[in-house]
Amino acid sequence: MCEANAYFKNNGQEVLFMESVDVIEPYEDGLKLVDIFGRQKFVKAQIKDMTLLNHRIVLEEIAEAKRGALDKTVQRL
Amino acid sequence: MCEANAYFKNNGQEVLFMESVDVIEPYEDGLKLVDIFGRQKFVKAQIKDMTLLNHRIVLEEIAEAKRGALDKTVQRL
Repeated sequence: MCEANAYFKNNGQEVLFMESVDVIEPYEDGLKLVDIFGRQKFVKAQIKDMTLLNHRIVLEEIAEAKRGALDKTVQRL
Repeated sequence: MCEANAYFKNNGQEVLFMESVDVIEPYEDGLKLVDIFGRQKFVKAQIKDMTLLNHRIVLEEIAEAKRGALDKTVQRL
């Protein structure tokens, strides 16, 4: 089976967020994850990196990334 | 092996973009994909959806999504 475990990276530490993830898709300003049993989790995060052969997805908060983009936008206006 | 094929969705059609993808990570304003042979591709896209059990990643252009978010930001300023 090719499901993966999703970890949440926070302050340099990786915490297991969800096991046996099958589906990942954007949902509002975050992600929806569905595991192989059909259980869903919603998280305000983006994919930091993902290695399928290692069955590993690392998520991170989007606040920082978004703030950077917004600053650039505001400067341009 | 748990690599996946990446498809690019454009105007309702899905075109094979890269086979046997192992690694996906954000790169500048798009994504970097690396296949099981270490070949890299960079694409201005975001993940539209992904089903690991089906070995399937669907990418889409980010222009539309970004424009929507930017409009909302500008209205709020």
